[in-house]
This record gives sequence, structure tokens and C-alpha cells, in this order.
Amino acid sequence: MKLIVAKFGGTSVGTIDRIKSVALKIKKEVTNGYNIIVVASAMAGETNRLIKLVEKITYNHKNSEYDTVISSGEQVTSGLIAIALKELGVKSKSYQGWQIPLETDNNFSKANIECIKKENITSDLENGYVIVVPGFQGVYKNRITTLGRGGSDTSAVALAAAFKAIRCDIYTDVDGVYTADPRLVTNAVKLEKITFEEMLELASQGAKVLQTRSVALAMNYNVKLQVLSSFENKSGTFIINERQKDMEKTIISGITYTSNEAKITLFNVNDKPGQAAIIFGALADQGINVDMIVQTSTKDGEATDITFTVLQSDLLIAKNTIDNLKNKIEFNNMIEDSKVSKVSVVGSGMRTKPGIAKIMFKTLADNNINIQVISTSEIKISVLISSNYTELAVRTLHDAFGLDK
Amino acid sequence: MKLIVAKFGGTSVGTIDRIKSVALKIKKEVTNGYNIIVVASAMAGETNRLIKLVEKITYNHKNSEYDTVISSGEQVTSGLIAIALKELGVKSKSYQGWQIPLETDNNFSKANIECIKKENITSDLENGYVIVVPGFQGVYKNRITTLGRGGSDTSAVALAAAFKAIRCDIYTDVDGVYTADPRLVTNAVKLEKITFEEMLELASQGAKVLQTRSVALAMNYNVKLQVLSSFENKSGTFIINERQKDMEKTIISGITYTSNEAKITLFNVNDKPGQAAIIFGALADQGINVDMIVQTSTKDGEATDITFTVLQSDLLIAKNTIDNLKNKIEFNNMIEDSKVSKVSVVGSGMRTKPGIAKIMFKTLADNNINIQVISTSEIKISVLISSNYTELAVRTLHDAFGLDK
Repeated sequence: MKLIVAKFGGTSVGTIDRIKSVALKIKKEVTNGYNIIVVASAMAGETNRLIKLVEKITYNHKNSEYDTVISSGEQVTSGLIAIALKELGVKSKSYQGWQIPLETDNNFSKANIECIKKENITSDLENGYVIVVPGFQGVYKNRITTLGRGGSDTSAVALAAAFKAIRCDIYTDVDGVYTADPRLVTNAVKLEKITFEEMLELASQGAKVLQTRSVALAMNYNVKLQVLSSFENKSGTFIINERQKDMEKTIISGITYTSNEAKITLFNVNDKPGQAAIIFGALADQGINVDMIVQTSTKDGEATDITFTVLQSDLLIAKNTIDNLKNKIEFNNMIEDSKVSKVSVVGSGMRTKPGIAKIMFKTLADNNINIQVISTSEIKISVLISSNYTELAVRTLHDAFGLDK
Repeated sequence: MKLIVAKFGGTSVGTIDRIKSVALKIKKEVTNGYNIIVVASAMAGETNRLIKLVEKITYNHKNSEYDTVISSGEQVTSGLIAIALKELGVKSKSYQGWQIPLETDNNFSKANIECIKKENITSDLENGYVIVVPGFQGVYKNRITTLGRGGSDTSAVALAAAFKAIRCDIYTDVDGVYTADPRLVTNAVKLEKITFEEMLELASQGAKVLQTRSVALAMNYNVKLQVLSSFENKSGTFIINERQKDMEKTIISGITYTSNEAKITLFNVNDKPGQAAIIFGALADQGINVDMIVQTSTKDGEATDITFTVLQSDLLIAKNTIDNLKNKIEFNNMIEDSKVSKVSVVGSGMRTKPGIAKIMFKTLADNNINIQVISTSEIKISVLISSNYTELAVRTLHDAFGLDK
């Protein structure tokens, strides 16, 4: 069986006309001899509408009633797509999470997939049915669960893994992954291929094309992903494992940025063992994710400065948490800065090709952009800079690494 | 266990504020020591919105995908009511049709209930949970089914029968059943009690308070029904069996009317055996429901006139059907009249008290209202009149039978 999983995002099914054109796309794949599992998002705006209904009553999302309400958007779309396919003469059947069943844990509103029972769908696929599964949905012991925002990508990848699909197509409103945000860099280029690791760095760096969680899942199960536009008839960007990527390909895949972090600096922290553990332990206890951390090197026994970044939405609670530590740690003063951007160079070729950092730092220096904090991973270098220089940094780095070629 | 089934119609759950006040009503019953199964309709307008989405693709409702889409409105409301109850500190849990399970046949979009499995809900009721069931929904072999428009009343009565509820409260936007339409007859009186048989005649005569099907079901299983307003704090109309009703109560319960029928007359039909069978057989084959029929008495062998009524929406197809019979039956000509109303006097006391027809016909004659067709049942007399006289007929009959007292 040559099976493709095809996931359609909210804008791709935002109107009945678009649902009809989704059905046409699927019919074409069926005519080409493929079996298809469609994964449907809710119509654009519908999930937010449902969340607002709930939030007029409560902000507590941690129960199965929330999931029961919220999952109905995908239920509607899955039925409508199945109906549209039937109208085109294509045999089709929708399968809600409980009908498959797609079993999750009981972490309502943010559940994790535990097991996908394959018997029902396999039998229907073998009989030539196109299967339409609402994304985002699962079931835990006869109760409806949902996988958290953007969970439809995860549903698609999990189904592709379970049913050993030859490909998982993620249809969205952009036509692929670019070397940089095309709104910022006019000569940004669509990538034909990118590795899972690169996509993970890009996704968590703000590329917003795919949920991080679904990329990690695809990497673990080696599911070949394609991100493509549902509004055009051309191939998108393939996300594959490193072995499948041409070795002579460019070292750097893309330049990304995020502007949703804030920087906190603590000056003259008493330099004795355990101070950092107290600070970051207290922040972790509040559920605050700390991204970049830098501590100035000091001579033994002298005071030190500690700088770190948190999400801007966590800034207030982070500051209060630090203030409450004043009896445990000593520091002169704390300053904050929300006008910062994190700019990253991502590429799996970095592993084998040294000198990327040098080019990056020199480019920024040549443009008088001051680097405030640096963090690195195997395939990524990120710098924190004043947000005034975001566009300039992204554009000049894009040129410096020759990504427009 | 003192169990009440409480069903709330679309306007009763039309906004989040109304859902909150539904939750308050239920909490009060719980405080009074009752166990409760709530049956929820979709928020007003929601089912029509969903049907319109489907009908932009197809008018074929006969498959489980239609039911999957359409049932989502009740799913949302059931979750929201359960959430609102939790917020008031009332333990509650929603049960979709498939979660109960409430099993139906596979007559998608108009399914019939076959079996309600009681184990899950009984166990939760015993543990003090309020159970919230979306009306209208069932399941057939892992596929979602729906019970047809107004099916939520049927869900409520079926649950009340299965769980042996002491009462089934149907909350709606009117406060009970009246002796006549209060918009027409200003001194119409709300009935405290009415029998199932009377309610059946009233419902099918256009009282529009309860689905006929749910009243028949309640009669079969002897479920005590109450129709009451969700916007007021007072009792409504109880629908009970005849033995429970006071014997000295008034003979006539109400005057109703419908204006959605049309009259067809065939003149000079050749009077030989089998003519009527051909006419009404052909109409039945087209799915046309014929209501009143009258044939003028003739001497043997002479031509006769046949008059009957059909729904106005069936008039065109009925006429075409008769036209196509011209080679099988002989008649001079066919005339139609849509400007007719059927006015009915309903009361189970008719069985034992003769003379109702006489009062009815005399009242109409005194007001110069011509009777075109008459039909009767054990507890009902209906007459077809010119629709110009509808209001006059209903008001004068209401007075003649002393229903304002």
C-alpha cells in the first residue's frame, strides 16, 4: 500500500469552497494510485470561538469537558471533507479519535498519544476508502482528549508513523520553509530540503510552519514530511533525515529571529557556589522557561553578573520571583530589557564545517550590531541583539552566507 | 434514587449566561435531593448553521458523516453545561451518545433508539454526578447517528424511561400548554394537566411545544412529562396518563389550528370499486401524507366527488401525481384550495360525554363559518374552514366550551 497522510490547516479548510478544493486535491492523489489518510484541522477561527465560549465560564482547561467542547471544530471539518469526497465519487469515511481509537494519556487539553489501534482504518484503507481523521483529538478511557494547540500536526505525524506512510504532507498557507522570513528578506529562497534537526531549530526559533513537537515525533519515527501550500499546485519543502540530504548542500539552511523574549541582568551577584542553582531553581519552580544564560567570568571569590532571557509574557513573574530571593542571594541590582531580538543561524552542516561563528560575528560587527548574549547548539548559533537591528541583522547574515543563491 | 430528567431547548441554552442559569436551576434540584440527568439541545441557531454548511456541498443527509457534523452542536452544549455545573461546585460529567452508549438503528439522520446501556451512567449517578447528555445523538456500530429534528425531546423521554425517572421536565421558551394559542385568544388559559392522548392530538395539530414522537414514547413507557419555561420559576403543564387525571376535569382541553394544509377536490370520479385505492395508493407511493378525506355519498353507479387535504409543501407533487393517473381513473376536473385552516377541538372527556360535535358545529354555524371537511378521532373533532375565519373560529369555540374559566 502506498499511503500518504495529508494534513490540512485551518485556513486550508476555512470555507466550504476550500474544503471542496481539498477534496479535489485528494481525489487527484487517489487517481494517482495512493491511499490517503486526511487529517483535518478546525475551520479557521472555530477553535478560538469554542475556547471563548468556555472561558466565559472558566479558565480551567484541565478536564475532559473542555476537550469535549474544543474538539468539535475538527469533528465538523472531518465530516464535511468526507461528504465533499463522496460528492466527487471518492469512497470516504471519517474517524473521530474515539472511533479509531487513538489513545492518549489523561493529560486533558494537552494529552500525549500512547497508542493508535490500526485494525478499523487498515481494513477500510484496503477496501479503498479515504480516511478522514480530525486532528488534535484522542480518547482516554471513553473520554475525549485533545493534544494541545497545533496538535493536528502531531496527529498527522503519529498516523503517518503508525501506518508507515511513504510521506506526510502538511498543507498550509505558505508554500514551504524559507532561508529567512520572506517579509523581512525579499530575496529569501524556498528550501527544497531541510533536516529534522534544522527544522526543529527553525520551528522553535519562530518559523511557525510546523509544531516543534510534531517535528520531533517525525524525527523519532523517520516520517518523511513535506510542508506545502494548499492554494498552489507545486511541491513544498521536504523535511528528511540527514542521511537523505545531499552532502554537498549548503551548510546553512536559514536565518531566523524571535522578538518575544526579554533580558534580565543581575549585577554583582555574590560569587559563591549554589547561587545560580537558587536563581534558576526558583524560576523553574514557577514554570518559567529560561532560554539563554550567560555569566561573566570572574576571579574566584569576586562578584559576578548574570544575564538570562525569558519569554516577555513571563517577565513580571520572573522579576517578582527574583525579588523574593533577596534573603537567599546577594546582588546589587536587577535590570530588564524587552527591546531585544534573538537572531539565529541554523544549519546541520555546522557540525563538520567550522568558522560559521566567525562569519556571523564579523558580519554583525561590520554592521555595528552589538551582541549581548550568545548561545549555541550543535547546528545553531543564536545571538541576542537590540531589537532595532533585527531586520538589518537577518538581511546581512542572509547575504553573508549566500542564502539567496 | 429520586431521578429527574431535565431537557433544555435551544433558546434555553442560547447564550453562556443562559447556560449559567440552567446550571443554577440544576444545582437547586440537586440541593433538594434529586439526582439529575440533563439533556442538552444545541445553542439556538447552531444546528441550522451546521446543516447549511453541509448543504453547500450536498442535500443528501443519509449518511453518518451528516450526523457527525450535525451532532456537534449538542456536543458543545453538553460540555459547556457540565463545565458550568463544576464551576458551581456540582459534580458533573457529559456523556455523548457513543459514551453511554445510546444505541440506535442505522437510519442515519432519522435514527430510532434501540437500546440504552445503563451501567456507566448509573454508577456515576450513584456517586452523585449530574449527567449531561447531548440530545438528538446516538451511535450505531461505532458511527454517530442523530434522531431527526426535535430529537432531543425523544432523547429525554427515552432516558427518563430507561432510568425510571420520577419526572421528565422539558424546559422551553413557553411556560406550558394552553387551551388555545395565546397570540390568538387573549383569555387562553395554561393547563395544569393534560393527558398523553390530548397532547398527541395537540402536538400534531400544531401546538409545537413537544415533538409528537416523544409524547408517544412517554405514553408507551408512562413517563410523567412536564413542559415548563426555563426563564421563570413556576411549574408548567404536566402531561400524564388518563388514570392520573381528575375525572371531573373539563371535557375539552384545547382548541388548535393549523394553516399548512391544502385541499384538493376531484369532481365526478367514476364510482366503481378501487378508484380511491388507486388515488391514495399513488399519493402514498410519492410519500405524500393525506390527512382529511371525504367522499360524497352517491347512489350506486353514479359519479362521486372526492376531497382530501395534503401539506401545502406537497401540493404540487400531489397534483402532478393525480394528473398522471388520468388513464387509470376518470374524473371531470380537479380544483385546489390553499386558503384553508384546520380547526380542532381536543379533549379526552369526549369519549364519555356526547354532544361536543353538536356544540362545535352550532358555534361555527352561528358565526356563519362554513365547514368544508370534517374528520374525527376518539378525542378530537377537526373541521376544515376558509382560512379567513381561523381566528374567529378558534376564539368563539374557546368561549363556547368555557375554556377561559
